[in-house]
Amino acid sequence: MSIRMKLNYSGMLEEMIGEHGVQLEELNALMGQLDRARNELMERHGKGDLEWMGLPNTEEYVEQAEEVWNGCREGVENLVVLGIGGSALGNTALQTALRPPFWNMLPDGKRTGARLFVMDNVDPERLETLLGIVDAEKTVFNVITKSGSTAETAAQFLCVLGKVKEKLGEDWKKRFIFTTDPAKGAMRKLVQDCGLMSLPVPAGVGGRFSVLSPVGLLSTVATGADARALLKGAREMYMHFRSSTAERNVPLLLSGLLYLADTTRGQKIHVMMPYSDRLRDMADWFRQIWAESLGKAVDRNGKKLNSGPTPVKALGTTDQHSQVQLYIEGPFDKVVIMVEVEEESSGLAMGSQLIDSTAFTYLEGRRLAELFKAELIGTKVALTNAGRPNMTLTLPRVDEEAAGEFMFAWELATAVAGELYCIDAFDQPGVEGGKVAAYALMGREGFEDARERIAQLEKKLEGFVAP
Amino acid sequence: MSIRMKLNYSGMLEEMIGEHGVQLEELNALMGQLDRARNELMERHGKGDLEWMGLPNTEEYVEQAEEVWNGCREGVENLVVLGIGGSALGNTALQTALRPPFWNMLPDGKRTGARLFVMDNVDPERLETLLGIVDAEKTVFNVITKSGSTAETAAQFLCVLGKVKEKLGEDWKKRFIFTTDPAKGAMRKLVQDCGLMSLPVPAGVGGRFSVLSPVGLLSTVATGADARALLKGAREMYMHFRSSTAERNVPLLLSGLLYLADTTRGQKIHVMMPYSDRLRDMADWFRQIWAESLGKAVDRNGKKLNSGPTPVKALGTTDQHSQVQLYIEGPFDKVVIMVEVEEESSGLAMGSQLIDSTAFTYLEGRRLAELFKAELIGTKVALTNAGRPNMTLTLPRVDEEAAGEFMFAWELATAVAGELYCIDAFDQPGVEGGKVAAYALMGREGFEDARERIAQLEKKLEGFVAP
Repeated sequence: MSIRMKLNYSGMLEEMIGEHGVQLEELNALMGQLDRARNELMERHGKGDLEWMGLPNTEEYVEQAEEVWNGCREGVENLVVLGIGGSALGNTALQTALRPPFWNMLPDGKRTGARLFVMDNVDPERLETLLGIVDAEKTVFNVITKSGSTAETAAQFLCVLGKVKEKLGEDWKKRFIFTTDPAKGAMRKLVQDCGLMSLPVPAGVGGRFSVLSPVGLLSTVATGADARALLKGAREMYMHFRSSTAERNVPLLLSGLLYLADTTRGQKIHVMMPYSDRLRDMADWFRQIWAESLGKAVDRNGKKLNSGPTPVKALGTTDQHSQVQLYIEGPFDKVVIMVEVEEESSGLAMGSQLIDSTAFTYLEGRRLAELFKAELIGTKVALTNAGRPNMTLTLPRVDEEAAGEFMFAWELATAVAGELYCIDAFDQPGVEGGKVAAYALMGREGFEDARERIAQLEKKLEGFVAP
Repeated sequence: MSIRMKLNYSGMLEEMIGEHGVQLEELNALMGQLDRARNELMERHGKGDLEWMGLPNTEEYVEQAEEVWNGCREGVENLVVLGIGGSALGNTALQTALRPPFWNMLPDGKRTGARLFVMDNVDPERLETLLGIVDAEKTVFNVITKSGSTAETAAQFLCVLGKVKEKLGEDWKKRFIFTTDPAKGAMRKLVQDCGLMSLPVPAGVGGRFSVLSPVGLLSTVATGADARALLKGAREMYMHFRSSTAERNVPLLLSGLLYLADTTRGQKIHVMMPYSDRLRDMADWFRQIWAESLGKAVDRNGKKLNSGPTPVKALGTTDQHSQVQLYIEGPFDKVVIMVEVEEESSGLAMGSQLIDSTAFTYLEGRRLAELFKAELIGTKVALTNAGRPNMTLTLPRVDEEAAGEFMFAWELATAVAGELYCIDAFDQPGVEGGKVAAYALMGREGFEDARERIAQLEKKLEGFVAP
């Protein structure tokens, strides 16, 4: 038993890329701190804290998800997730990674699970159009909100509920599954009052660390992917994290290298660039966990910091024709984390002698996957030659185990980075102000003062407008 | 005649957000330089240079696109764009903006134009899957490459051509439209040799400035959007740019404010955050034009710079639950450009008295669009209160004219920014290294030396791998 993911961090080091690289001595000097960070996290988890660390070992949630899904799946074609942020990004990332491209458009015979639509916003046109193309009788809506009070999710729910009640009357109760706190909140109360289907978001599992809980497991099961293999991969990563020396420990190295790049080299932009369309939404999931966990105003002692790297989503080869010019020639403020998949996803090949031209002789008869790989190496070489920090995460293929390894590695790396920055990686105090303002603007009771203050500010903000 | 887009830049100024804001005096001091930059660009364009500036006035390209499309559209359900970078991003952005959500999945009666698939990558599984779901006889493939030699586009073409020839034999010729240089390159030669359908990419129109040329017009026409209105919006913006004083000139203010933020305040990350699902891919299009144009190693005199802001794509409200924590509490290294749409895209409302709970009373009976707007204002207020630079671009609605105004405003702002940074905004020398490496790895003739060098580097890069 061991992980299949590999991290090649040669391109991060001064000896490969020169002055903008990390010195091996600096990295070695950090090993003790990385070790202590790991021990601290393991200890807290051992005492019952950081429950998300135990999710890879909690197969009972898979059973619960299967039970709920099997209880309602008959005749169901669509699962619609109503949620936002941590209640949406993981579902999207897993679906894109684990199901074939164009999943929702495949002809019925080629799709062995439900279609999945994740409503990650409150754009009214998008939700209304969706309700026009999915048949309520063939659709299950999964409302995901840990607190039960997220405004956007509640709003999506109230819009959908009205339409579904119109069509199905009391049968609406068979069309909703609530994934929410096991005991508290408005959604749990509704579940209890109306006897609705539900799954728990365990205490101590925050939104962005929840993908391996029922939050991410129901859609995994519903789309026909192997949720147990997903947990198995995460479990391998957990054991690797627990027992490997710091020098060989992938989550520790990820956090240590990126922390050094940010704090000692001013490389505050961390680009994740998978060379795989299936992994494109994993970069979006990473974007949340890295930004929201590490972007903090103060450290644990209340000292002002205003720190946190900015994660950026990119895609190879696409962004070679959009962002790589900047990555190669712009400021030395970035690390590029390339994600490589070893196994070719398709044998699709370029035809030979199809056209009367020698311009493309070098491509003829070759597999498209060969070009894809050559582009990855080409970019890695170009970044390295330009002295640009880069590293490569390699997965053997994109499957459930690999997804579990990958996601759990980043959850662990994020928690370790929280220790290095000496911040609380699990809160998000900075979003309160915007929430209060939105409540006030919606006329929610108790927010009258805020409303008045906003009106004044809005007026002041009208000062400079063009044309 | 005047533009409908508004720019509110109050949140950029010191008097609103404090020390991280730009001083009005600094902005005023830049006005002369902005004026000169505009005059310089207008003069170059007047002499026949910068042909992209004339595209809003070139309706003949719309006519050509219509003629080509009308010549082959009968029985056609799908348009597949084969291209990458500037040959793909504009098509995607326009389709998302101008057609309803879930366009490709709408039932036939509700779709009054072709479905559009943009292959912006060489992921073999995605292309192979697509070829399995579109019927070759009902599909037209639009190969877009100005030079005619882009490796990724040629590779996509050779893969598709093989499959289409297998199915249709010589009739393959009716299934391809080439958008390429009017006279030069391998694709133009193929068009001439085989008598194929084609459109020109005019000289002096680089990929990222090509969306208003046949590059973006064919898919606009094919999906049933109004290409003339798109050009009309761009034309309004051109005239506004030409004749408005710098103080009221939207493209000049965009470039001036972002230039000052970058170079005098260290705000090197420029986030575009539309509150509209229809505009999400516009942010991706912006990402290319801003990064590839301004990320440069040297200035026009060869002086070393390594400058250029990093554009980031975000989406409201979605990213309030992912990135806004970082934007509010993290480093003061960002400007957030919010994009607001005035008209509500749908009247979808939240039901009342659907559930027995007072938790959501503040939402009941309200339109979802009201919440969407409240979230935008809430975030703007929170950013401003936290002293974070922000500005808001407001469009009356998302339609062709607005898209034309928006895109041309950013093309002009990019060109002006090139003048301010004193760099060439129209080249991309930094991507050559990666291209050469990819050619070498594919065994292209003449790249043998490079191949040897890469092999050596690859070996050195194997030094540090975990676990």
